[in-house]
Amino acid sequence: MRVLILGGDGYLGWPTAMYLSCRGHVVGVLDNFAKRRWEMELNVEPLIPIHTLHDRVKAWREVKGEQIELFVGDLRNYGVVEGVLEKFQPDAIVHYGEQPSAPYSMIDHNRAVFTQVNNVTGTLNVLWAMRKISPECQLVKLGTMGEYGTPNIDIEEGFIEIEHKGRRDVLPFPCQPGSFYHLSKVHDSHNMRLACKIWNLATTDLHQGVVYGIETDETRLDERLETSFHYDEVFGTALNRFCVQAVAGIPLSVYGSGGQRRGFLNIRDTLRCIELAVVNPAKPGEYRVFNQFTETFSITQLAELVVRQAAKLGISATVELLENPRVELEEHYYNPAHTKLLDLGLEPHLLSDELINSVLERIKTYQSRIKRDIVLPHIKWDARAQEMDELKLMWAGA
Amino acid sequence: MRVLILGGDGYLGWPTAMYLSCRGHVVGVLDNFAKRRWEMELNVEPLIPIHTLHDRVKAWREVKGEQIELFVGDLRNYGVVEGVLEKFQPDAIVHYGEQPSAPYSMIDHNRAVFTQVNNVTGTLNVLWAMRKISPECQLVKLGTMGEYGTPNIDIEEGFIEIEHKGRRDVLPFPCQPGSFYHLSKVHDSHNMRLACKIWNLATTDLHQGVVYGIETDETRLDERLETSFHYDEVFGTALNRFCVQAVAGIPLSVYGSGGQRRGFLNIRDTLRCIELAVVNPAKPGEYRVFNQFTETFSITQLAELVVRQAAKLGISATVELLENPRVELEEHYYNPAHTKLLDLGLEPHLLSDELINSVLERIKTYQSRIKRDIVLPHIKWDARAQEMDELKLMWAGA
Repeated sequence: MRVLILGGDGYLGWPTAMYLSCRGHVVGVLDNFAKRRWEMELNVEPLIPIHTLHDRVKAWREVKGEQIELFVGDLRNYGVVEGVLEKFQPDAIVHYGEQPSAPYSMIDHNRAVFTQVNNVTGTLNVLWAMRKISPECQLVKLGTMGEYGTPNIDIEEGFIEIEHKGRRDVLPFPCQPGSFYHLSKVHDSHNMRLACKIWNLATTDLHQGVVYGIETDETRLDERLETSFHYDEVFGTALNRFCVQAVAGIPLSVYGSGGQRRGFLNIRDTLRCIELAVVNPAKPGEYRVFNQFTETFSITQLAELVVRQAAKLGISATVELLENPRVELEEHYYNPAHTKLLDLGLEPHLLSDELINSVLERIKTYQSRIKRDIVLPHIKWDARAQEMDELKLMWAGA
Repeated sequence: MRVLILGGDGYLGWPTAMYLSCRGHVVGVLDNFAKRRWEMELNVEPLIPIHTLHDRVKAWREVKGEQIELFVGDLRNYGVVEGVLEKFQPDAIVHYGEQPSAPYSMIDHNRAVFTQVNNVTGTLNVLWAMRKISPECQLVKLGTMGEYGTPNIDIEEGFIEIEHKGRRDVLPFPCQPGSFYHLSKVHDSHNMRLACKIWNLATTDLHQGVVYGIETDETRLDERLETSFHYDEVFGTALNRFCVQAVAGIPLSVYGSGGQRRGFLNIRDTLRCIELAVVNPAKPGEYRVFNQFTETFSITQLAELVVRQAAKLGISATVELLENPRVELEEHYYNPAHTKLLDLGLEPHLLSDELINSVLERIKTYQSRIKRDIVLPHIKWDARAQEMDELKLMWAGA
């Protein structure tokens, strides 16, 4: 199949491109390198040095003999989107091309508005261009488990049957997202549902959990093929950040009580989930949601797993409970369904001591590159003055 | 109270300003006159000639001796929003300032994206500016009953208690809006809910039905105080359009079977609902939803009411069932709750023969101004080529 990956320069986009390229698909990637600029704004960088996308595509050709077609462009520009669909003629579009960070969206008013306008416009442009150029193409869009929030009932996969006053219907699962970023994904989900209904498009909305892991079979082939592993407060996620903190001798920073439960998955499973969605497409007119994670942990559980595994490597890691910069429940019910991808054949790589061990070992290799001052949270959800203001972090434009 | 009305030049915004100004409130209005430009784009205009907002504010001072403070500005400009809050210091903000038409949002890709970006950005700017400048101020925001769509269960006011697999929670009512415009209102609702939670803001989200009526006690005082009564396919709504069709001798255009049921209310009740929300504010941190309509009708019922009343005036009106330009259920269950505004003291002006009669009579006065070619639908929801394209209706910019 011909698969176009939007956001192909990212933590997941690039490994997905290689993964699908290895498995007989014709792969194109599009990116506008916006995230590289956000990293510059915030003075953060991936732990492992990342080559340019142009150089990675070239390296992939040298290493594997496979061609990944590279497009440079911004999804907010409708002409770009139409153009790439016309040129590449995809059978499937995998859409990672959004501002991906909740803390980034909470820094200030400019970044909140930017995150929503950027993400909503990009996805609307993709939907309208599909309608015109490639209505048979399917869209596989990355959403987030954070769209649901933490309701006091079991979370289903996108829809829930509700019985109310003697009547029944199957309705979209109610969403209570916790940041302007997570809200942007909810907006996308609503927009996709309408586009499927009125234009007969086929879309899969992957409500993904928190991804961890530093490498895939493909990134290991050559140092030029590495993916961007973040550990900072803005782009880093819980387990990845904890591993860096352990290696750097910084207490593992748990926000609040640490009782927050979330769904997690290995980066390798992300790639397989994408493939499963692509090769088992939605039907025309179908908007479907897969909850994409393999197991749930509380943040405290994760921290304890890292502490225990670090000890085996002779690292004495500690945990520090920080005042929670977010506004969220710290103790809550959490039991989301996640059977649809398993039914399609996903065989999870569950979180193991070996995985944590290998991440810790890999981080040690790059220990000297760790920037200690970018790890702890400064971005507050509530209306307290943002400490980030002190950094004179003005809006740099879109 | 000091009440700032965003979108104060509109069909509802201007009458609301006068209504509140009459009742002891200090009123400010803000508008960027975007809708006047959209009218120009589409070559549509209100039935009754409308004076500029500047002249209407002046006329109001002459007629009633009351000052309405006028601000010219665009809500998409954050500096404008901060500036008007600082200058006017409102106790309540009534937010009508959005692109208000479903058909407009479905014309083409540009207008779909514009509608969502415009509406979402404006509301986000208001929320962020309230957080900084006037966190005690309450927001009364106009949403739409169309946010819910037409589920097969009773629609509640914003939230629903769900029992699922032995557990319970009160969650946002699931939304299935039917256009990119209606979606923009759902996005706003989600954004408002988060802002209340994290910043302790007080907001009321009025999920309003379809408004009908051509005049209020205040618009009748002077011809310079009239409000913009639309009957075209883009800005006109069902009952208002039917009355114009009857007078003009155009068959009343019912989309599809006409079994679509919606909530309706008299423009006079809109004004009273706004006042009730303003003087009975939400609590800090509260996001509340009122379903703002007084009765439901099917489209066919409405058309028949107009035909019957027109006959009494010697007008022989007919009904024509057109191929539905929208994608929507034409026969469906519809029983939305609407008790919260009644509990606050709303005394509905239900749809009466007298009301239809007075609208028909008023339209007759302006009969010579009716543009016959702007009434019938050309904008299609589905992927058929837009007939509007033939009009070379390119994007004129935002």
